[in-house]
Amino acid sequence: MNPLKIAIIGGSGQMGRWFQRFLADQGLTVLTADLDTRETPQEVAAQADVVILSVPIPKVADIAREIGPHLRPEAALMDVTSVKQRPLDAMLKAFPGEVVGTHPLFGPREKSIDGRTVVLCPGRGERWLQWFKELLEQAGARVKITSATEHDRLMAVVQGLTHFVLIALEKSIRQLGISPKDLEDYSTPTFDTLHRLAKRLLSQDAQLYACIQLANPANRLALRALDDAVADILYFIQRQNANGLVRLLEEIREGFGEQGAGGGRL
Amino acid sequence: MNPLKIAIIGGSGQMGRWFQRFLADQGLTVLTADLDTRETPQEVAAQADVVILSVPIPKVADIAREIGPHLRPEAALMDVTSVKQRPLDAMLKAFPGEVVGTHPLFGPREKSIDGRTVVLCPGRGERWLQWFKELLEQAGARVKITSATEHDRLMAVVQGLTHFVLIALEKSIRQLGISPKDLEDYSTPTFDTLHRLAKRLLSQDAQLYACIQLANPANRLALRALDDAVADILYFIQRQNANGLVRLLEEIREGFGEQGAGGGRL
Repeated sequence: MNPLKIAIIGGSGQMGRWFQRFLADQGLTVLTADLDTRETPQEVAAQADVVILSVPIPKVADIAREIGPHLRPEAALMDVTSVKQRPLDAMLKAFPGEVVGTHPLFGPREKSIDGRTVVLCPGRGERWLQWFKELLEQAGARVKITSATEHDRLMAVVQGLTHFVLIALEKSIRQLGISPKDLEDYSTPTFDTLHRLAKRLLSQDAQLYACIQLANPANRLALRALDDAVADILYFIQRQNANGLVRLLEEIREGFGEQGAGGGRL
Repeated sequence: MNPLKIAIIGGSGQMGRWFQRFLADQGLTVLTADLDTRETPQEVAAQADVVILSVPIPKVADIAREIGPHLRPEAALMDVTSVKQRPLDAMLKAFPGEVVGTHPLFGPREKSIDGRTVVLCPGRGERWLQWFKELLEQAGARVKITSATEHDRLMAVVQGLTHFVLIALEKSIRQLGISPKDLEDYSTPTFDTLHRLAKRLLSQDAQLYACIQLANPANRLALRALDDAVADILYFIQRQNANGLVRLLEEIREGFGEQGAGGGRL
């Protein structure tokens, strides 16, 4: 039996190259197409058992439409983008066969998939979804299967708000004109960790991080919650209301089910 | 020659106990006073070469006033609180001798001072400032000497804004009603780090973290910068303006002097 053929469209990008290497390591034949490859997306898609779109979120719909008619009827169409509702809808419209939305919850700098999480969102059909789940799990990944809506709801926090606060922190620092040298000299362990994460995020593809803010419909609700949270905290700060702020902090802590450590008594 | 005597007022709190152990390890005689000690703050202060206040920020002024008249004229009065302008002013008013404001940029969970930073803010006099600087440096600490104003300006970011965004993130999560189990299952390495730091912060003394938001006069400007940053980012998100948001991200990055990593081309 011939090994399965996987086509990666957008194979020259960082995640595309990551999956090319990963899938080849699993003994699969991997074809890739990108702007700089001899074969076109249509040509590689026509030969593959599974076609994976690894392209910027705003291009998923167009590229799915271009390659959809060329896929074998028994093939599967998948993507590896950071939001799921819109890409999954676009793939379902573009191709009548099996469709799976996927989101690897890690970046192209990870050496191994071992212990990392991949989210799979069923679109249409079960066969290739199961195949991909088993392939990932055998390589050590944690696989979570959920709806695109639920994925996007959780990612609005895990990616959307998390990136948002890191970006907002760095933009504030820039606006305040604080020098990198001073930040380094007067850093605390907590600040140092946030600052390093923010710098790493901002050193990567700005288009991708802009899309993560723009292309998830669940971000609207999450950003409203953040806006409310900021206003609630500022309310107590502006009124110098220590008891109110302590209560706010304690209410958040109660959700964790943990006790305060307690300071000095004087 | 007798070893120097150091009095720690608020010695039963976490940082108080940390410094008690640290100073005893340096061969010094350490006296402590707190609400639960036999000797009063006035009694231990009267015997000491150096008196260190390790009490909540709002209590520094009152306690400095209570013990000030009891200090030996040649002694030094210091504090170890997280803001510096107000405590230093209060100590200078309460005692006419040497005064030093200090801020260890680490928490009581650190095992060693080696490689950690301590900020010293000169109040009045040089002798005990130099003594403390040398003691800390010989133990491996990095010592930064700066004004209370400059300290507070930098801490408004390093502590104020950093804690603020972590608290706001957790409050948003609570408001959105996302379960701890879902957050764990769908976590990314970046979210996991922020979430752990936030939970650790919120598990500690809420009074302390409220004071860090309330007692630093430089927070006002920093919070205004954060508010502006949030509004600037939201502006582009609400208008689905990808180019504007990419420009905003790239402008922050330019300050780091780094290049983007670049994604796929398709």
